This record gives sequence, structure tokens and C-alpha cells, in this order.
Amino acid sequence: MEVNIDLQKERKSATFETEKLTEILYNGKTMVRRRRYLQNIIFQDKYINSFTPWWNRERDESYDTAVKKSVYINKLLRDLNITNGVEQFYIREAAACQESNPLGLHQVMFIPTIEKQGTKEQIAKYVEPAKQYKILGTYAQTELGHGTFIRGLETTATYDPNTEEFIINSPTLSSMKYWPGSMGKTCNYVILMAQLYSQGKRHGIHAFVVQIRSLKDHTPLPGISVGDIGNKLGYGGMDNGYLMFNNYRVPRDSMLMRYAKVEKDGSYVRTSSPKVTYGTMVYVRSTIVGKAATALSYVVTIATRYSAVRRQTEIKPGGEEPQVIDYQTQQEKIFPLLSAAYAFLFTGNMMVQEYTRINADMEKGRFDEMQVLHALAAGLKAFSSDTASNGIDKLRMACGGHGYSHASGIPKIWANITPACTYEGENTVMYLQCARYLVKQYAQAATGQKLVGFMSYLNNPVKQRSALNDALSMSDLIEAYEHTAARLIKVAATRMQSMMKGGMSVEEARNKCAVPMVYAAKAHCQAYVVKMFNTVANRPSLDTSVARVLQTLCKLYAVYGINQRLGEFIQDGFLDGQQADMILNKTLSLFAEIRPNAVALVDAFDYPDEILQSCIGRYDGRVYEALYEYAKTSPLNKQDVHDSYYTTLKPLMKGELKFDTPTARL
Amino acid sequence: MEVNIDLQKERKSATFETEKLTEILYNGKTMVRRRRYLQNIIFQDKYINSFTPWWNRERDESYDTAVKKSVYINKLLRDLNITNGVEQFYIREAAACQESNPLGLHQVMFIPTIEKQGTKEQIAKYVEPAKQYKILGTYAQTELGHGTFIRGLETTATYDPNTEEFIINSPTLSSMKYWPGSMGKTCNYVILMAQLYSQGKRHGIHAFVVQIRSLKDHTPLPGISVGDIGNKLGYGGMDNGYLMFNNYRVPRDSMLMRYAKVEKDGSYVRTSSPKVTYGTMVYVRSTIVGKAATALSYVVTIATRYSAVRRQTEIKPGGEEPQVIDYQTQQEKIFPLLSAAYAFLFTGNMMVQEYTRINADMEKGRFDEMQVLHALAAGLKAFSSDTASNGIDKLRMACGGHGYSHASGIPKIWANITPACTYEGENTVMYLQCARYLVKQYAQAATGQKLVGFMSYLNNPVKQRSALNDALSMSDLIEAYEHTAARLIKVAATRMQSMMKGGMSVEEARNKCAVPMVYAAKAHCQAYVVKMFNTVANRPSLDTSVARVLQTLCKLYAVYGINQRLGEFIQDGFLDGQQADMILNKTLSLFAEIRPNAVALVDAFDYPDEILQSCIGRYDGRVYEALYEYAKTSPLNKQDVHDSYYTTLKPLMKGELKFDTPTARL
Repeated sequence: MEVNIDLQKERKSATFETEKLTEILYNGKTMVRRRRYLQNIIFQDKYINSFTPWWNRERDESYDTAVKKSVYINKLLRDLNITNGVEQFYIREAAACQESNPLGLHQVMFIPTIEKQGTKEQIAKYVEPAKQYKILGTYAQTELGHGTFIRGLETTATYDPNTEEFIINSPTLSSMKYWPGSMGKTCNYVILMAQLYSQGKRHGIHAFVVQIRSLKDHTPLPGISVGDIGNKLGYGGMDNGYLMFNNYRVPRDSMLMRYAKVEKDGSYVRTSSPKVTYGTMVYVRSTIVGKAATALSYVVTIATRYSAVRRQTEIKPGGEEPQVIDYQTQQEKIFPLLSAAYAFLFTGNMMVQEYTRINADMEKGRFDEMQVLHALAAGLKAFSSDTASNGIDKLRMACGGHGYSHASGIPKIWANITPACTYEGENTVMYLQCARYLVKQYAQAATGQKLVGFMSYLNNPVKQRSALNDALSMSDLIEAYEHTAARLIKVAATRMQSMMKGGMSVEEARNKCAVPMVYAAKAHCQAYVVKMFNTVANRPSLDTSVARVLQTLCKLYAVYGINQRLGEFIQDGFLDGQQADMILNKTLSLFAEIRPNAVALVDAFDYPDEILQSCIGRYDGRVYEALYEYAKTSPLNKQDVHDSYYTTLKPLMKGELKFDTPTARL
Repeated sequence: MEVNIDLQKERKSATFETEKLTEILYNGKTMVRRRRYLQNIIFQDKYINSFTPWWNRERDESYDTAVKKSVYINKLLRDLNITNGVEQFYIREAAACQESNPLGLHQVMFIPTIEKQGTKEQIAKYVEPAKQYKILGTYAQTELGHGTFIRGLETTATYDPNTEEFIINSPTLSSMKYWPGSMGKTCNYVILMAQLYSQGKRHGIHAFVVQIRSLKDHTPLPGISVGDIGNKLGYGGMDNGYLMFNNYRVPRDSMLMRYAKVEKDGSYVRTSSPKVTYGTMVYVRSTIVGKAATALSYVVTIATRYSAVRRQTEIKPGGEEPQVIDYQTQQEKIFPLLSAAYAFLFTGNMMVQEYTRINADMEKGRFDEMQVLHALAAGLKAFSSDTASNGIDKLRMACGGHGYSHASGIPKIWANITPACTYEGENTVMYLQCARYLVKQYAQAATGQKLVGFMSYLNNPVKQRSALNDALSMSDLIEAYEHTAARLIKVAATRMQSMMKGGMSVEEARNKCAVPMVYAAKAHCQAYVVKMFNTVANRPSLDTSVARVLQTLCKLYAVYGINQRLGEFIQDGFLDGQQADMILNKTLSLFAEIRPNAVALVDAFDYPDEILQSCIGRYDGRVYEALYEYAKTSPLNKQDVHDSYYTTLKPLMKGELKFDTPTARL
């Protein structure tokens, strides 16, 4: 198939070799090749390609397909002996991109939780059968009335020493488990998070392994009420479920007892306080940064290619219609998000590396840096998922009407990533967690304490004026970000202090400062991203032409960010009005600088058409052909003349319309 | 059913009478009563209530239901003799809120276009049959390759004097009509917008009445290729269609010839230049402001009530979990959008009133004010739909996980309004249209010319410093908005002038200033909204307590807007850093001031549960009961044990899994 001529030109105009940048993104030539090799196995797989396309699946079929694909992919991974997590992700990305995985939580939550929090006996009892899929599990935490605030969960597990059992109950309607994935129809076991009661005392939230469906015929067990929670914005393939317990009894060894125990007589013993879950939480949040970046980069690819192919309006009357990517306003929609996609992809990688390094320290008992990382992971989880969710929607609209069709692929990608703003800690709560740490660190720095890691910028002496000029040195830009973050942290901290001095409780003061706290956290996170991006763009190992284009992108990320949050940078005069003008001008000229490399920059993400599943984001740019083909697949086109004609339109036109039920009364 | 106790308290705490505000929103007691009367007819209608709920309809059923409901509602309107447009809207809102209307374009585009642009003979020939639904029409303008830029449409109508026919063709793939509503399956006629060719010359875009399907059996006529364009993000009930022509011949009188004619011999005569379409465009865009406001107000209602019912986390350790609406961060998400909903509802009303007044002037030949309104309507169409689309999504996330479920009703409302950012003129194009007018007006004001209407603020002398203090006088706030808008218009205008002095063509300069032009247009629009809101909030006829709460909302709208676009207000020192601090403080204290009235303010919108269709936005606040009921309706719950168990999960668990097709090769 011939490639659209505009895209051909775009690719020729690039100032760097796409492949070299791809190798940086995927950690080297070997992995790039391996990734393509794995993808091709999937793309040629007959079974994977045998399903109705996702955009035409009804709910039932969505779920059924998701189950079948999940099971098949797992079999494939075993047959091919692919055990590396990154490689497994590449297989899944190629086989079911943006589709749900009803066996995912079984693998990433059910089994690992037992492995980490179970005793040896419990591990032996559950993990091997689970790995062989003899039992299917999920993780039941969220309730109708409680999400992020885990201590508020209401499900109870009350120990009965007479029978050596726990009695599990859903004491209120709001205590119903609601949302856990794979719970509605798929699994027969759950890790249940519940309030533990024993000997009349409450011992807080603990994890239990609980069977909910029969292993014989999959029917819910007596005392259990379970089902799917109904249709959602997306995730049609996932059976997010509800679950209620009515005096449901489970044996004593159902409680995961590695760190806390209930003895036969009901006495409660906490053996040690697990920092494990803390580390896991940091890790999971760190990976969301990469997920958000990936989703954003899919859509940036689609929007950039489409904008190079699409021609619209005349710049000169009667002249040729330009590619829409030549409009400054279109560049303003796409290029900052292109730079953000790179920024977050690199930051996501760095976070995971940092986690690995710091986790090793933590096992030696050093927690300082883990706290920095914990705060940062919370903040960046929120900042990256916000950016991706809002950015993807902006890019969708930048693709005009076609962006609204599932043909563009964009609504699906968006519906899949936007829940990341809510799960694993609701974003505002995450910003506040981050901010509370920042305010504490600020107080320590104020007493002259030396802070560790990235926090050390709070030790810098406060400068009055930035030296930023039109040379746009990255050190001046980073300084501006750090200065502004430090100032906003100070604003929140002093506001809190003065309220507390006025007699307010710390809790109330925190709430009354929550908005400025969120501002501070966002500023802190963006400062980190700018700094990380700059580090990567200046790696000595980089090819010169690749380094140059990454440095331009990084600069755009930095100046555009200032432009967006201008008030915060100029309010104290650190930057002045003239510098603000200069920044706008530089932003616009950076658009022009990136313009010839835009298509190559998204090509470098190396997403095959089979992954993007977008008529308008195709590598060959044949968007109109693809949109026409897409239209033909419409469920409404199964009949040339739709049934509604016979039942309704024909009688209407003939004036013979009757309605079955009596018409409205006056 | 008992009302949730928190909502009861909220309603008691209000400082004003909800009903009085409702009467202002709906133009008086009589209309409020009439609206409820009409709604109740619908809510008790057996036929309307006989369908599968929208959240469980598959595509085919969505379309079929939409057709049936549309036809039924039209019959009802005739039976009840409801001819007033506003009343018709109330009926439709109650009967099919957020659902598509496949007969809508027949009524609002097909018939009116013939009435306005057709000759007497054409009106006689088509309008009466159309009104009796003997023929069903739509408006076919958008093509695969062209949307907002109408002059670029490629479909051709070439006159053949030998047979006195037009030969209609789709000369390229991109010329395929694509997107027009009701075109895929419903209609048998279209108003076709096509490039007219006659005697070898091109005469630009003209409208033709073209039959596309047989009146006998609804099959596409020879030479016509037509169908649905496939599944989209929303609008499942609408058959947006594609349409291609292959040497399709229509008689000469198919062209609507009121303002331009092709004579029998093929000579082209333009009799007059129709300003009609210009007025209609202004009107349609003005109405979008109200539509956007309505959508936003639905969701603000849902989010506010839910936030009053939902309790989450402890402010004090071990204390009661507060209503989430008590969190400052939640107030920051909801209250500014509550104020925006009111602002746009009032602005939308004002725009339509202004249109009526100015249209009367225009018919007397005075066009000045219509131009002001044209620019404003373009800008406000964009500004209001942007605000609604982004705001609704923000509110969805403010409702946590439940916001993501169709149970919340929010994703549907959003999917229904977000296309308003694209249709009737893509928003960026709209901002630029507005900005071009502003830049011209700025040039006129610079030569000392006195400007009319709202534009007159450009005649004000430039002040250096704002007197704004913590009394927050509205006149100071309005002045700040006008000052900033004027400054941003000046920035864009001088940038353009200097580029043109440097030898750039006007077209190129416009493109290179497009981003600052958009900033200017947004600032202009928001200044108008602040001013209009303030006018309404100070109407002498208002009840004192209602006036007080509206004035508070208006103030919040104004200060929050400054806070969001802070850089623009302080860059030139018109406001300084201290005033900026004060504005943030005032914003936060206005949240606290609005807090006790929040629920009453959304109650005043007077949307019955049947319209909101939201489990979490119910008047009685019984959200958890409703979510549980919703879950039970899930298509996956039709079977307690899903088929996927038998086909896939059971064999997996038994280790007996086989796949039909050969597995992937290595």
C-alpha cells in the first residue's frame, strides 16, 4: 500500500534517525527487535484475529472476548516461555491493546498478596492452585461507600472461637464491595479486605482469602450475593463486580497471617508492621506514570499523523489548503503534549529505576529516600494521569469530528486511562499526600536541615530575580521551576502555620489550605519532570541529532509549562512581564522548530497500526480509505433497509402509525 | 421515600427560597408550572417508559428506540397542540433526555432551509409533504475531507442543458458526505451542499434538494451509495451517515433558487446575496451557549448532591467522616462550575434576546450590531462548549469511581455535549473568527472611532493600575476583565502589524499570531460573561435573598476566572502580586460563603430525577440503593453463571482447554 505523499515528505524532512530514538525509548537495539518479533507473532495469530472488532462488540461479547483472549494469551506466554514482565506487556499490548483482562488481577493482585502476606502454609495452599488456574481470584477492597480511604471500609470479619471461624458480614448497604475487577462473573476466590473483630475489639483492616463461588458449578455460595455492576464509560470487557456477605463463615486460616495473627482463642497478635505494602504502593503508583505516558503517546501519534494528512481551509485565498499541522493553533494543541509524552515516558522509567535502587536501600533499613519517593510517586501518579486524561481529550478534539468516532481509536484509549485518575489513590488525595510531605520538608529546611534527593532544592537560598533570557538556558528554566515550587510550598506552609497559631486544629488548617497545597504539589511534580527530562536529553551517550531534538522538546516542555502557569512564575517578580513576553515568543518559535520533526518523533514511539487501531493514525496515512472501510462495518449496515423502516418509518410516511400502548392522557 | 438526612439539612440551611430562583431561570411562575405539567405528562406515559434503559441498549436498539421515541414525541406534540419551541424542548427533555432524535434535522434543517432558500414553487412542492412526514429529509454538508471550511466541499453538481438536469458526483473519496445525522438509515431526501458547475464555470457552494432512497421500499436509488458511519463515542441513537453519488441526475428545479438561479440554458444568475444564512448562523451559535449551560447544570446538580451525601476520610482522626462537599478541594472542583453554569444560562438567554433585538434592526438594514453579535456568538459558542465539555469531565472525576459508571449519568451527558466543540464551527476556528473582528475593532478604536455595543470597552482610556481591594467591587472586577481583554487584543494586533511591516502577507501573519489571537478572543468572551452575569444579578426586580446569592456566585465566577488566568491579569502590573494573593484568599472564602447554599442552588435548576437519570444525583440522595439497583440491571447478570464459564473458565480450571484455531507459531 502506498504511503500518503505528505507523510512521505514529513519523514524525509526529519533531522534525526527515527530508529535511534526508538532504541533509546526501548533500552537498546536488541529490545526493539525482540519487541517487534513478539508483536509479529501476535499479529499473525489466527485465533487473536478471529474476534469481532472491539468497536462493534456488545457488552456480553466484550466480556466473553476478554475472557477468551486473556486465557489464550496466558497459554501463549507459557507456550513461548515468556516470563519477563516487560515482554509479557508487549505481547498483551499487541494482542488486546486497550481491552480488559479479566485474569489480570488474579496475577497482579491475588497471587502476590498471598505470597507477600500469607504464611508458608497459606502460600502452599493457595498459590500453586492459583498459578495453575484451579482457582481464580481477585482483590476485593473498594466498597460502595469507600474508595481511597481504606480505614473507612465497613465489611466485618468477626472471629468466633467456638468454631474457629470468621463470620463475614456486610453490615450496611454502603459496605457492599463494589467495583473490584473480575469479581462480578469471573473469579471464585477473593482477597477480602475487612475490619477484623475479635474478643469484642476492633483490630483494623486485614486481608482474608475467601471463596465466593462453587468450584463445581461456579454458582455463588450460600451467604454470598455477587454480580456485575453494570455498564460503564469503558472497560466493557471487565466484570467489575458487587459482593455482599450474610453471616458467611470461613475457617480461621483464611486470614493472611504473616504479619498479624488471630490465635485459636481469639487473641490478636501483631508480629511486625509490614513495610512491604508501602513499597508495593510506591511501585504501583510509579508504574502509572509510564502507563499514562504510553496512552498519551498513542494519541499524540494519531493526532500528529492525522494533522499531517488532513488539509483544511486556505491560508491564502484560493491557494492550496495547508496540512492542518501547519496551523499555529494546531501546533499549540499537539506539540506540548508530544513533549509531555516524552517527558513522562522518561520520568516513568526513572521512577522505576529509582524505586529499584531505593528499595534495595530500604531493605537495609534506610527509609529517607523511600519517603521522598513515596511523596513523589503519589504526586506524579496524579500529575501524569491528569495530564494524560485531559491531554488525550484535547487531542481528540484536535482531530475534529473524526476524533469523536471510535474509528479514531481515541475515545477507547481515553476511556481506558482516565480511571487512572481515580484508582490507586484518587488524584486530589495524592496531591495532598505529596503536599503534606513537602510542607514538612519545608519546615525542616527552614531549621537548616539538609534534605535528601530531589527535595534538596528546598535548601537553596531564595533568589529574587531570574536571569532567564532568550538563550533559554535549561539551568535557568529549572531554577525557575524550583524557585516557584519552593515559593508555593512556602505559601501553603505559612498559611497553615498562621491558621494554627490562630487556634485552628492541624486537621482543620490542612483542609483550609488544601487548595494552595495542591498548587504546591503540582509545582513540585512538574519541576521534577522538567529536571528528569533534561537529564535524559543530555545523556552523553546520545546520538548528536537525537540529543538535539530531545533538547528542543525538553525546552518546549519547560517554557510551555511556564506559559500555562504564568501567574505563579511572575507573581513574586522572579520572572517579569518582559520575560513572560519572551517566553510566549519562544514557545511559538519552538513550535516552528519542532514542526519538521513532528511525524518522525511520533514514528519513533514505534506503535504498529495493529496497536493503535486508529483509522486516522495509520502509518500509511490512508485515513479516508480506512474511515470508509470502518463505516461499512457498522451494525446498522447489516441491513440496507433497517427494521425501523418497516416498524416505524413506513407507517409514519403512509400515515398509518399506531402505537401498542395507550397514548399519553391530557 | 425518605430523603437522605444530609440533603434535608442542606435544604434547610439555604438562605433563599429555591422556588424563587427557579422562577427567574424559567421566566416566571407560570412557565415553571407549565414546564412541570408537561414533564408529568411524559413521566406518566406508558409508551415512553416501555423501553430498555439507554445504558443497556445495544447500537441497533439505540437507533430503533430513538426512531420510535422521536416519532411518538412528534405525534404527542401534535395531539397536545404544543407549538411553542421552548415547550417542545421541555417535552423532548423529559421524554428522551440525552437521547438522539433521528427526525430532528428534518425539522430544524431540512424544512427551514427549503423555506428560506427555496422558490415559492419549491416550498409548495417539498415543505407540505415534509411536514406530513411523507418525505424525510436531512442536511448533507460535511464531507470526509471537509468540515468547518465549507468552501472546500468537493461534491459537484454539474448542469447539463441538454436534459435540463444536474449531474451529481462524488469526484474523490474525500468528497464522500460523512457525518450528517439521520442520513445513514432514516431519511430519503437530503439538502445537498455541492459545488455548482455550469457552462464550464464553477459557481461555488449551492443547496439542492435530492432524493436518495426510494419512496416505495426505502432502498438507495441507483447511483447512490449510503449507509451508517459506524459506532462513535456517543450518539448511538443517531444514524450519522455516509453518502456518495455516481453520475446521479436530478432535475433543474432541485437547486434551491431563491437567491441564485441556473437558467434552462445553463446561465447562472445571482439575484441577491442572502444575509439570511448569516443571521441563522448567529442564532444557532447563540443557542449553543444555552445548551452547553444546560448540560453543565445537569452535571453540577449531580456532583453537588452526591458530594453532600458522600462521606469520606476523617478530617480529625477517629472523627466522623465529613461530607465530601466540606473539603476545600471538592469545593474548588464544583463551585466555580456551579457559578459558570449560572453565568452561561443567563448569558445564553441574553444572547437570544440580543439576537431578536438586533435581527429586527438588521431587517431595517442596520448591520453594525449584528457584526458585534456575530463575533461574540462565534466566541461564546466556543467558550461555553469548551467550559461545559471540560467542566463536566472534571465534575465526573470529582464523583470518584461512581462518576465513571453510566449509573452516574455523567458520561452520557458529556458524550452528548462535547461534539458541540466541533459542530456548527470548530471552536478554534470560532475563536479566530471572533479575534479577527476584535483586531479590526481595535484598529478602528485606535483611530478614535466610537465602537458600538459591548465593543465600546475598547474606547476606554488605558489605566495603569487597578483599584481592586478586598471589598471586591464588581465594577473593579469588570474593569480588570475589560482591561485585560483590551491588552490581549492589542498584543495580537501589534504582533500582526509588526509582522506585516516586516513584509509578511496578512494570511501568514494571521497564522503566526493565531495563538495570541485565541487568547484575546477568550478574554473578550469571559469579560462579556462576567458583565452579563453581573447585570442579571443586579436586576432590581430580584428578591433580596436571591439577589444576594446570585451576586456571590457572580463574584466567585469573576475572581476564580482571574485566579485561573492570573498571568494575563498581572503581567502588565494592572493587578499586582498582593492583589493576586487577596484574590486567592477571597476565592477560598467565597467557597465557604456558597457552601450552605450549594444544594439549594442546584435544586433551583429544577431537574427531576427522570431527566438527570443519575443514581448519584437523585433528589432524595439515596445513591447507594440506586447504585445497587443499577448493578442488578447489568446485561452480564442475565445469567448467574455466565456462558464464558462453560466455554472457557471451566475448561481452564479443569486443565482441558482447547482452542479452535491453531495456536501461534514460534
